Amino acid sequence: MAISNRSLMTYSPDLKILDCTLRDGGLVNNFAFSDEFVKDLYTANIASGVDYMEFGYKASKRIFSPDEYGKWKFCDEDDIRRIVGDNPSMLKLCVMADAGRTDYKQDILPRSESAIDVVRVATYIHQLPIAIEMIEDAKEKGYEVTVNVMAVSKVNDMDLNAGLDLLGRSNVDVIYLADSFGSFYPEQVCIMTERYMEVAQKYGKEVGFHGHNNQQLAFANTIEALRYGAHMIDGTVCGMGRGAGNCYLESLLGFLKNPKYHQVPMMKFIESHMIQIKKEYTWGFDVPYMLTGILNAHPSSAINFQKAGRTDYAKFYQELMDIE
Amino acid sequence: MAISNRSLMTYSPDLKILDCTLRDGGLVNNFAFSDEFVKDLYTANIASGVDYMEFGYKASKRIFSPDEYGKWKFCDEDDIRRIVGDNPSMLKLCVMADAGRTDYKQDILPRSESAIDVVRVATYIHQLPIAIEMIEDAKEKGYEVTVNVMAVSKVNDMDLNAGLDLLGRSNVDVIYLADSFGSFYPEQVCIMTERYMEVAQKYGKEVGFHGHNNQQLAFANTIEALRYGAHMIDGTVCGMGRGAGNCYLESLLGFLKNPKYHQVPMMKFIESHMIQIKKEYTWGFDVPYMLTGILNAHPSSAINFQKAGRTDYAKFYQELMDIE
Repeated sequence: MAISNRSLMTYSPDLKILDCTLRDGGLVNNFAFSDEFVKDLYTANIASGVDYMEFGYKASKRIFSPDEYGKWKFCDEDDIRRIVGDNPSMLKLCVMADAGRTDYKQDILPRSESAIDVVRVATYIHQLPIAIEMIEDAKEKGYEVTVNVMAVSKVNDMDLNAGLDLLGRSNVDVIYLADSFGSFYPEQVCIMTERYMEVAQKYGKEVGFHGHNNQQLAFANTIEALRYGAHMIDGTVCGMGRGAGNCYLESLLGFLKNPKYHQVPMMKFIESHMIQIKKEYTWGFDVPYMLTGILNAHPSSAINFQKAGRTDYAKFYQELMDIE
Repeated sequence: MAISNRSLMTYSPDLKILDCTLRDGGLVNNFAFSDEFVKDLYTANIASGVDYMEFGYKASKRIFSPDEYGKWKFCDEDDIRRIVGDNPSMLKLCVMADAGRTDYKQDILPRSESAIDVVRVATYIHQLPIAIEMIEDAKEKGYEVTVNVMAVSKVNDMDLNAGLDLLGRSNVDVIYLADSFGSFYPEQVCIMTERYMEVAQKYGKEVGFHGHNNQQLAFANTIEALRYGAHMIDGTVCGMGRGAGNCYLESLLGFLKNPKYHQVPMMKFIESHMIQIKKEYTWGFDVPYMLTGILNAHPSSAINFQKAGRTDYAKFYQELMDIE
């Protein structure tokens, strides 16, 4: 096993933390963050030394009606500018673009006309040809580009190898290992990270990790991916994200010994905003997400179970076994 | 690194799960579990294939007044018998005895007169001579005996090596690695488990692991300990335990592929009892426990912070840094 040279006490200048609270957390509150929340999070990320901040999706307004979603589902240039101005900071700004659900040709402006630095393409394995067109479009426009292949815990080896090779030969900068169902255990993350690292090293790319907390392993899996060489890791404040949520950003700030990271500004942001938003919305580890995680199933059934106010866990488990 | 032969799909007949809900969870509700709760947990553990169940402490009634604590602080023989009769099951019953806080000579009966199978001695490193007397007393009385050396994340190498060697030469059966402050990361658990395994192999003992969830790593650390050879692992239903709580028993049941373990009876127990008790008492991962975990500090300051209804996390973090 090719463990990287990193250890707990190592200062690793090549590591980058990405805050995706607005994007993955937006799936919890339908992207209805106040401008004050977004502005304060932007300021807290800068003060904490966070490297990247994702503002939301670049979703197609033909497919999704702006009447039904908050503005961070669409990330219009004007909305971002109202928060960041010309972003006179080291913090790089990102948006996510879903394969097949983004009018990327028109909605993603040339980088010279945008405050955005990074386009993050999200794709299922069968959409890779679309994703690669999106990657090349964003690269040509001047962006840093990352790609998340979603739900890889359900993809067979042959397809994944072919997909990773396609991505290797594309102009993408970072290939993300995404544990969409929160079903991976650390020893699987170790094996998967090594696979992604191999492709990345061959083609001169970097590797990212995006975890979900269905089994309370998002943080553990993220630091396992770091141990095996990942360069870019995602977190959200208080783990805010769909269903069981994500890796806690503040756990990453506490874990990493890089002197550029600071915990106190994030603690202040939690006091000012997260205590309140936790009262208004529910996310995070709970029994039904644990069960979908164990069974490597999409969390939607667990989200519906929670929304319906059900607590018949034994029956739900049997239902999941019938679907699988 | 001497990784054990276990893998995710391996059936490992030498693994044992211990449910310590009543004992560690008792620190949340002052041991005020109803007989119905205890009886149903006993039944659920048997049906789920759990190997050991801890009923509580054998605390000294000279030191702790029975008027101030529920009965599982003391685990009188009659109270246990009222739940289990003669325990006609494979489930082994345990009690914990704290070094210096147990009248073990009189309160721990000969095994032939007790429904209890296992005495678990808990000790700080400086109390080891007392702990060893307790171990030998319990062995002479016929019990299986385990020992938890608490707070080892604060113990220097010289003391720990001397302590482990003393325990190796005692008659104890299982030596527990206990992450009392929830401060260990998986890569440290790997190193520590290997150290404990070395002593265990030299002296013919087994190794146990008891985690805490301050950094949401209780489950990850437990399966890391398993990967490096631990034989006996502790969990509590819904992670119920002091402060940030423990490793979720139901996560262990889902993770282990041993055919003897069953999830459904535990899901039913959660439906019947845990939903209610979660409304009455608070435990589990939260910001202040994360901070004490990161700083390798005793969780008592975080427990007091929560009890006082404080939410000034940034100030609390600064306070912790001043203490350290």
